[in-house]
Amino acid sequence: AGGLYQLSKAGKLCVPAMNVNDSVTKQKFDNLYCCRESILDGLKRTTDVMFGGKQVVVCGYGEVGKGCCAALKAMGSIVYVTEIDPICALQACMDGFRLVKLSEVIRQVDIVITCTGNKNVVVREYLDRMKNGCIVCNMGHSNTEIDVASLRTPELTWERVRSQVDHVIWPDGKRIVLLAEGRLLNLSCSTVPTFVLSITATTQALALIELYNAPEGRYKQDVYLLPKKMDEYVASLHLPTFDAHLTELSDEQAKYLGLNKNGPFKPNYYR
Amino acid sequence: AGGLYQLSKAGKLCVPAMNVNDSVTKQKFDNLYCCRESILDGLKRTTDVMFGGKQVVVCGYGEVGKGCCAALKAMGSIVYVTEIDPICALQACMDGFRLVKLSEVIRQVDIVITCTGNKNVVVREYLDRMKNGCIVCNMGHSNTEIDVASLRTPELTWERVRSQVDHVIWPDGKRIVLLAEGRLLNLSCSTVPTFVLSITATTQALALIELYNAPEGRYKQDVYLLPKKMDEYVASLHLPTFDAHLTELSDEQAKYLGLNKNGPFKPNYYR
Amino acid sequence: AGGLYQLSKAGKLCVPAMNVNDSVTKQKFDNLYCCRESILDGLKRTTDVMFGGKQVVVCGYGEVGKGCCAALKAMGSIVYVTEIDPICALQACMDGFRLVKLSEVIRQVDIVITCTGNKNVVVREYLDRMKNGCIVCNMGHSNTEIDVASLRTPELTWERVRSQVDHVIWPDGKRIVLLAEGRLLNLSCSTVPTFVLSITATTQALALIELYNAPEGRYKQDVYLLPKKMDEYVASLHLPTFDAHLTELSDEQAKYLGLNKNGPFKPNYYR
Amino acid sequence: AGGLYQLSKAGKLCVPAMNVNDSVTKQKFDNLYCCRESILDGLKRTTDVMFGGKQVVVCGYGEVGKGCCAALKAMGSIVYVTEIDPICALQACMDGFRLVKLSEVIRQVDIVITCTGNKNVVVREYLDRMKNGCIVCNMGHSNTEIDVASLRTPELTWERVRSQVDHVIWPDGKRIVLLAEGRLLNLSCSTVPTFVLSITATTQALALIELYNAPEGRYKQDVYLLPKKMDEYVASLHLPTFDAHLTELSDEQAKYLGLNKNGPFKPNYYR
Repeated sequence: AGGLYQLSKAGKLCVPAMNVNDSVTKQKFDNLYCCRESILDGLKRTTDVMFGGKQVVVCGYGEVGKGCCAALKAMGSIVYVTEIDPICALQACMDGFRLVKLSEVIRQVDIVITCTGNKNVVVREYLDRMKNGCIVCNMGHSNTEIDVASLRTPELTWERVRSQVDHVIWPDGKRIVLLAEGRLLNLSCSTVPTFVLSITATTQALALIELYNAPEGRYKQDVYLLPKKMDEYVASLHLPTFDAHLTELSDEQAKYLGLNKNGPFKPNYYR
Repeated sequence: AGGLYQLSKAGKLCVPAMNVNDSVTKQKFDNLYCCRESILDGLKRTTDVMFGGKQVVVCGYGEVGKGCCAALKAMGSIVYVTEIDPICALQACMDGFRLVKLSEVIRQVDIVITCTGNKNVVVREYLDRMKNGCIVCNMGHSNTEIDVASLRTPELTWERVRSQVDHVIWPDGKRIVLLAEGRLLNLSCSTVPTFVLSITATTQALALIELYNAPEGRYKQDVYLLPKKMDEYVASLHLPTFDAHLTELSDEQAKYLGLNKNGPFKPNYYR
Repeated sequence: AGGLYQLSKAGKLCVPAMNVNDSVTKQKFDNLYCCRESILDGLKRTTDVMFGGKQVVVCGYGEVGKGCCAALKAMGSIVYVTEIDPICALQACMDGFRLVKLSEVIRQVDIVITCTGNKNVVVREYLDRMKNGCIVCNMGHSNTEIDVASLRTPELTWERVRSQVDHVIWPDGKRIVLLAEGRLLNLSCSTVPTFVLSITATTQALALIELYNAPEGRYKQDVYLLPKKMDEYVASLHLPTFDAHLTELSDEQAKYLGLNKNGPFKPNYYR
Repeated sequence: AGGLYQLSKAGKLCVPAMNVNDSVTKQKFDNLYCCRESILDGLKRTTDVMFGGKQVVVCGYGEVGKGCCAALKAMGSIVYVTEIDPICALQACMDGFRLVKLSEVIRQVDIVITCTGNKNVVVREYLDRMKNGCIVCNMGHSNTEIDVASLRTPELTWERVRSQVDHVIWPDGKRIVLLAEGRLLNLSCSTVPTFVLSITATTQALALIELYNAPEGRYKQDVYLLPKKMDEYVASLHLPTFDAHLTELSDEQAKYLGLNKNGPFKPNYYR
């Protein structure tokens, strides 16, 4: 989605676009709820590591980071968080995670997970200081978060121990366990539940239908958020899976709230 | 904030207004994080109820409802949720709560908590069907969620058992424990931590300063969300309390992300 | 219970005694489940402290410590644990708590909670190093865990700020918030739920009935654990409160397990 | 361990035996902490199921059941528990799980997990009533908990969909997903962390050394629990893995508690 906004700013977007990535259902399911499960799954399938008692640092406390942290905390890991955004940082504090700079904990942690969307978050300097056996992986949106290129130097030996798992070996024998060569762990070493795929695909399909059907002039050459009502529609289509029973507003209540009984129920900016 | 938007729609807003209620820090702290604690505190101080094993229904899964549910689940309660909005409903499912209509569980629950912002959520019909000893309270934003007026009828006896606690007694001897006469439990029977007050007050003060200092024309007679950067500033002022250490973007990273190193770090709609 | 065993060892116990304190129901309810709630309640009623983001050290990871840690972790506190027993220490690790010596964290924590049953766990040396505003309280079984006597010296000023809450003030202005003068927080500043009282009282009554009714010779002048079957009976009496439905063994299953269909279902040492 | 006690009762045990299975470290790690992780791992590797929002029934709330329930609850599943033992049943209630008979929920659950050590817990009658797609697996100690033999009948079709995963297909098309043909999921479809193996192996080795070295007469032809001190020793050997720092008793404290400074720190029955 970031790319679309940059194109738009630069005046280079030649069609209307929907930023489906930032619809609530997409964000919460593809990022928060899916990653809460796939971080555990990806780590287990590749390393068989036990989570209990492990010290973990999670870089980034957006939806993906929140999911990773919640899962690992629940499994008995001791989790530290790094953040650049003070709002997300404060949320990490309130959720019970120590907010640190990477350099403060890099020597002691057993697992390093990147979820920033940024580049060069884990650079060679940090990799040099990790302890023997430290697991390094990326749950963010690109393969740039870990500076893997910096590990392709003559003094370090790479040993492929199994599919998606490399040991990078320092001259003194220290080994770092690098997963998926720094690419996305959740896509490379875990599976995406059909339920999440269904939500994402429904969102994308509805966005396309909306763009196609919209009367001329509704959308210009710009980036739009999915209309709230469609976002709600995606969610409502998936409730029966859980045998979930929605409550309906009475006429009196709808009037009191100033809402249509069929939604949308929240302002567009609500997350 | 709802009222401001209604005034604005009706063209009756005669000054610019900031909707500080929907800034991230306000929302999360005043609603989610504060209520996560005050629901337990309010119930304990008034009723000394043990949470473990209790069946609870929480009406509404916005920030307040999320906080109440998380706290009670953590204390060993079995929590059911009601919702009108399919997005919030789906979140309740993914967080491990059965989504029900109130009528499905009203006979079996030990505690009923309203967090909807709506009116007449718990009406006499439901009160009639609650079991003996059921505790009823309101964590939403008004005193209208529980239809308390419907309980002021001759066949029901009210007994004030202690400050903020009434027993409403049915002819067959059944007692409902009504807290704060249906007004806000968190304000009536719990305390608001100074930390939360500080965040809310800072947000309000910054909003006023911004409105006062803004060059003419920046704000019209409309409702505005607090600029993201100010929201982030409020958060950053409160990080030292937790000895929390923020990470700074390098120049290269800021460029990669297309961000100013000092923020804002997220689009305005980000929550 | 410790006292009984010491009497017995010394040959000074002149009647049979039941160690009801170590029956499973008593241990779990009076200690684990009750303290999980009363630590929050006791702290809120006395200090109105917000738990989210606070750093807390809990001394002792027995049932009481486990309850305190679980509750505070769930409320978003960052919890450290001290222990002398390696088994409990390892459990703390697996439950996600850093196991430290008190001296490692005493300067940084916001709350200190003792749950050891030991004496002089928090001594003057530690009190001197706590930060301004640090809250100190005792959830263990005596008033000896915090060396309160060491604070009754001329250079320190005591200020009673409200019932059960003293500020102890150092010459440099630092204040420590001492709760209940070091006596039990859960008894002094919280309430014991009737459900827990019921379990404890039932256990004690059954133990007395058993000692009274037992045929001569069943019990000598020694300390006995409550027979498993009675422990199970106490539990079964309290299940209807939760509308809990027990499964019955079939004859075939009871035979397979070598159990009587009516219990006891576990060996005596099972906890 | 049950077998040893039966042999002993029958007078057929011809050597001393250690019940290492019931030592605290073995119980907690091999059962509680290991299963807390392997239930998620085993289900993911075989079925890629998403846990969030799923309804699950766990049969048995011993250490294994407690681990399974805690993990699934943390991942957002809605968990029901069945139990025969009122003490464990009451614990399930206090931990926030509805205690039901299997027949009450069998039609609605998405996943059925057995952890009882019993036989014929999930019989054909229940399998007939499960909904389409229901996953059935066994985390208990034998292959007898699910009556798999009852599914080997002509009207049902078996389809092996992948290693360790069978679809059993009813005439109406309903499919049950049976894992590991009813054998142990944690051993068949997950991995046992080296940390857990190390604890178990250390416990077993110490037990053998003790039996071998013990002076004549210390052990008769009976079943013994591992001496507490050895149990503690096993734990202490594994603390450095977590960089965990144990506190030492002072002489004064040891005297106060009536303990040796080097342990054992708890009575033998302590769990």
